[in-house]
Amino acid sequence: MDGFSFSTEIRVRFAETDAQGIAHHAAFVVFLEVARVAYLEAYAGGYQAIRDTGIEALTTEVHVKYHQAAYFDERLTVWTRCTDLRGARFRYEYRIEREGELVVEGHTSHATVDRETYRPTRVPAWLADAIARAEAPAA
Amino acid sequence: MDGFSFSTEIRVRFAETDAQGIAHHAAFVVFLEVARVAYLEAYAGGYQAIRDTGIEALTTEVHVKYHQAAYFDERLTVWTRCTDLRGARFRYEYRIEREGELVVEGHTSHATVDRETYRPTRVPAWLADAIARAEAPAA
Amino acid sequence: MDGFSFSTEIRVRFAETDAQGIAHHAAFVVFLEVARVAYLEAYAGGYQAIRDTGIEALTTEVHVKYHQAAYFDERLTVWTRCTDLRGARFRYEYRIEREGELVVEGHTSHATVDRETYRPTRVPAWLADAIARAEAPAA
Amino acid sequence: MDGFSFSTEIRVRFAETDAQGIAHHAAFVVFLEVARVAYLEAYAGGYQAIRDTGIEALTTEVHVKYHQAAYFDERLTVWTRCTDLRGARFRYEYRIEREGELVVEGHTSHATVDRETYRPTRVPAWLADAIARAEAPAA
Repeated sequence: MDGFSFSTEIRVRFAETDAQGIAHHAAFVVFLEVARVAYLEAYAGGYQAIRDTGIEALTTEVHVKYHQAAYFDERLTVWTRCTDLRGARFRYEYRIEREGELVVEGHTSHATVDRETYRPTRVPAWLADAIARAEAPAA
Repeated sequence: MDGFSFSTEIRVRFAETDAQGIAHHAAFVVFLEVARVAYLEAYAGGYQAIRDTGIEALTTEVHVKYHQAAYFDERLTVWTRCTDLRGARFRYEYRIEREGELVVEGHTSHATVDRETYRPTRVPAWLADAIARAEAPAA
Repeated sequence: MDGFSFSTEIRVRFAETDAQGIAHHAAFVVFLEVARVAYLEAYAGGYQAIRDTGIEALTTEVHVKYHQAAYFDERLTVWTRCTDLRGARFRYEYRIEREGELVVEGHTSHATVDRETYRPTRVPAWLADAIARAEAPAA
Repeated sequence: MDGFSFSTEIRVRFAETDAQGIAHHAAFVVFLEVARVAYLEAYAGGYQAIRDTGIEALTTEVHVKYHQAAYFDERLTVWTRCTDLRGARFRYEYRIEREGELVVEGHTSHATVDRETYRPTRVPAWLADAIARAEAPAA
């Protein structure tokens, strides 16, 4: 996908469908989280490792635009990139596709906080660096 | 709430919390749906009645902004209004509050489709009228 | 309900339905938890109050028998009783009904643990007493 | 695993954790379903293919015994076997392990029904045969 260098695969679970016979729209919000976790595993040692340093990443905004319905057992590709990392804030952008067809677009915003105080705390330098490397344009 | 004439109450379930100790952000997307269902029950005979006429309302967009975390067992008030009903499309706006404090703002967009063909179909006149009456400014 | 003195009401959410057009079977496991929370609120000051004393109640067993399907927006009555409280262990039994018709039977087992160490810890006497009073046969 | 010839892998999602810091007990009921779907894909052409023949498999009973908690991002192995297939009824048994340690045991019961009438209908011979072959003891 143009502009995205990372993707992960999702399979629609039966429990994620609804009485319209499609994947429920709230399930996609979970798919985005699964993609962030996979992204952090690929580039930054995993989300749990970040949590273990005493930081939580809160979700401060979710935006999802649904272009097509998805159905039980379909394989979806979640293209994911991390952008606008600054201080204690960062943003992810997503495109979910099914065999190259756009199903969902979205973005989420996040803030890192101290796990004990829930006060904003800067994204650690090692994590910011890891993301910068992951998102650096290929030469 | 200024500009909202309808609200419904939500209680945060334990299953809706996450390992951050707060209500998971995806749970709020479900809360908005619960509020729409309550709204349609109050003003338009219920969502199931609408489905029974052969129409499904798809969710085409979700936007949620999280201002505060919510916690297990808290009572939240979901202020809800329906706006911009036109043809086969309409929009809901929400403010979720806890004891008057803003927790979440959001809006969702929807399209009505024929239940069999999934083709767009106008919101029936009776439903558009019911919503117009519900949202009419008090004299 | 014979043998049950407590019940709470559940309304099936659209997000809880699945592509079979019915409430997904896992949703009922959450309904049982909602009923336990309501039970503890009615008789023992609420589950959060118990958690605040440094105790967590783990679920160690779930059994659900599905007699009828339930559908979107239906109101279900969850009859609930707490039994076999002994040491760090207790059990709940449930009957979920729709207008007097049996939909689901179930029981769950639980163990109280210390919130920090996750070691088993006896149910506090005040809580055991509150439950004993709640379940005492009417004279 | 002794007595099991099929397993699938699950990764605990953050959305599946709860405020106890562990995977919520209801999430495991979904994991069992994911395992059934993977089983049917491996041995019987997939659950959707079965649904496409006009049959739905209802879940009539769920039993889960929790031996250990599971945590965010852990990889779990869900050992799965189908047993007691007779007429319109069958049963699955499960052992969920983490690195060889037992986390959860469970079983579920199911009934096949006609998709239109919801009347019980025998498991089709081709599916019964496929399962019999899958579960045949290795010579």
